[in-house]
Amino acid sequence: MTSIKIAGIGGSLRKDSFNTKLMQQAKELMPDNSVLDIIPVGKLPLYNQDDDENPSKEVVAFKDSLRRSSGVLIVSPEYNYSLPGFLKNAVDIASRPPSDNVLRGKPVALMSASSGAFGGMRAQYHWRQVFHFLDMRQISRPEVFINYAQEKFDQSGRLKDSNTITLIRDLLNHLVNAAIEYSYIQ
Amino acid sequence: MTSIKIAGIGGSLRKDSFNTKLMQQAKELMPDNSVLDIIPVGKLPLYNQDDDENPSKEVVAFKDSLRRSSGVLIVSPEYNYSLPGFLKNAVDIASRPPSDNVLRGKPVALMSASSGAFGGMRAQYHWRQVFHFLDMRQISRPEVFINYAQEKFDQSGRLKDSNTITLIRDLLNHLVNAAIEYSYIQ
Amino acid sequence: MTSIKIAGIGGSLRKDSFNTKLMQQAKELMPDNSVLDIIPVGKLPLYNQDDDENPSKEVVAFKDSLRRSSGVLIVSPEYNYSLPGFLKNAVDIASRPPSDNVLRGKPVALMSASSGAFGGMRAQYHWRQVFHFLDMRQISRPEVFINYAQEKFDQSGRLKDSNTITLIRDLLNHLVNAAIEYSYIQ
Amino acid sequence: MTSIKIAGIGGSLRKDSFNTKLMQQAKELMPDNSVLDIIPVGKLPLYNQDDDENPSKEVVAFKDSLRRSSGVLIVSPEYNYSLPGFLKNAVDIASRPPSDNVLRGKPVALMSASSGAFGGMRAQYHWRQVFHFLDMRQISRPEVFINYAQEKFDQSGRLKDSNTITLIRDLLNHLVNAAIEYSYIQ
Repeated sequence: MTSIKIAGIGGSLRKDSFNTKLMQQAKELMPDNSVLDIIPVGKLPLYNQDDDENPSKEVVAFKDSLRRSSGVLIVSPEYNYSLPGFLKNAVDIASRPPSDNVLRGKPVALMSASSGAFGGMRAQYHWRQVFHFLDMRQISRPEVFINYAQEKFDQSGRLKDSNTITLIRDLLNHLVNAAIEYSYIQ
Repeated sequence: MTSIKIAGIGGSLRKDSFNTKLMQQAKELMPDNSVLDIIPVGKLPLYNQDDDENPSKEVVAFKDSLRRSSGVLIVSPEYNYSLPGFLKNAVDIASRPPSDNVLRGKPVALMSASSGAFGGMRAQYHWRQVFHFLDMRQISRPEVFINYAQEKFDQSGRLKDSNTITLIRDLLNHLVNAAIEYSYIQ
Repeated sequence: MTSIKIAGIGGSLRKDSFNTKLMQQAKELMPDNSVLDIIPVGKLPLYNQDDDENPSKEVVAFKDSLRRSSGVLIVSPEYNYSLPGFLKNAVDIASRPPSDNVLRGKPVALMSASSGAFGGMRAQYHWRQVFHFLDMRQISRPEVFINYAQEKFDQSGRLKDSNTITLIRDLLNHLVNAAIEYSYIQ
Repeated sequence: MTSIKIAGIGGSLRKDSFNTKLMQQAKELMPDNSVLDIIPVGKLPLYNQDDDENPSKEVVAFKDSLRRSSGVLIVSPEYNYSLPGFLKNAVDIASRPPSDNVLRGKPVALMSASSGAFGGMRAQYHWRQVFHFLDMRQISRPEVFINYAQEKFDQSGRLKDSNTITLIRDLLNHLVNAAIEYSYIQ
């Protein structure tokens, strides 16, 4: 029996970032028979429609990784009260051209972390409007906003807050269940 | 008497784009004694906080151009019902680190064009939340959503719709007036 | 075989309103074996949590009508770039107290009309955030924004625009299919 | 020298509500030479455009109170991840008909409280889109989201958290300064 593959995009390009650590933790917390394939986005070009006909090999590889997944996990910091440009750029690339949109219709789950009081909430609601456009199957519960992140990770970068761990497991379970359903109907 | 300098960022990285044409038209429609300095964003790196200490020369030049302006015009397509990643990335770079945020407090105006019925509206409201965070002085009227753009530009890429031209002039006048005020209080 | 019952709320309290006409048209365009039960909201009190223990008979009747439905159609004008207070008030009443939330989890579809260019779009995205909270099953396609409504209804208040009629039928079909599924799992 | 008059609308219709207490506290924290006139909204009818020509005496009195103010303070709970219907209804009434919009252009400040982690944030961003439409002069800083409100009020319903009190004073100072400016240009 093969594992269900979930694509993970996001975190932060910064090495020592709570969102990067969060993505690593998600990899460890995946349900049995599923795997999180973390796909880097930091080498992607800025999206330019003129490149649609001759995509770079980075773009081709990125889209192929997403294509092989049955669901997507987005771990997103909040930049300037909205989604980060570098991560929206990755989603823009994944969705274009419309004839090769590798996100449309797929299950998607969302998490965010910040050192402040609100845990990235403002970015999440902008993302949900994007997912609505892409007609993705949004996992709506639980919402995972990890606020005061410095209190919830230990020195080695691992989550120590058990409530947060439970929330993440719950979200990932819902995502994998939706991905299993999705893989059957394809 | 020196001209008031407005920085223009946006359009599209695609050459034959309505938003790129719109930026060019804005340059021609600027009020007397003002100039629009169109600042390219297509060669910027993806924002990475680890680079804050040693920004590339592209980033330094980009931020210097913005620093010399007294106001900002953003011409933004809508991608996936939100702001385009490549353009948000430019704003993320301009705003970081907080000690060298070259946007905070400046007057800002917003325009968008699309071939569809809604003219980029969904991107505009996400942008306004970003401007709110940056505590920019938003020009709120008129709102310029150029829908059915193919009917409003001629073959040579120039605006032919007189109502649209009037709206843009009006928006630019408000922006330049706010930029004059801003330049006095600095 | 009994019909699937959809609850319709919205329109406008004004008699001669495009949104009121739109609700009437939706009633005629319902798929076979389904019925739209239009539930008036104009006599509801302003929501006050202190009344939760002793709801008025209008509130009891309103919630009972919603309780008997397997799906909800909201026809919403846009007021001041957001959802109308009178209609949000009805949804607030329907959702409270949490132990008697008669909306949670139900399929929901959304339509709006306006005489302007944008057809109520700004209200729709605020509604979708509400539906997200209520964990309703949102019908995401097609989106029905009826702009320039005066051109799409005839003198007698009936829709004459065939594209619009097709869109509405399509939306209602999706809603009724989701309501059938919902009624099985209850 | 006459006092600057600010109109306060909001709180909650519920008697024992943090938002109601917050409005009372704001009244005590107003700067010198200013006064907060708390205007009740719980007896207003649901807005109906058909009543524009013959507004009830409650509507006339409500709008007259707003008309006499030079600025507005909105204290808003969050209902269902958005603005409360009863309070949006009051704003809808105040803004209609367009020829007698008693809000347009006025300074406005916003506060919210909740017992949860996020302090009403989701309602605030929907309100800001409404203020944008009404072309009100938004006080953008500080943002006042009072989370875990039960820890910040004492038994008698008074704020005991000094940071919160400082934030509110700061917001009210900005509002009153903008209202003074507004009153000069009328």
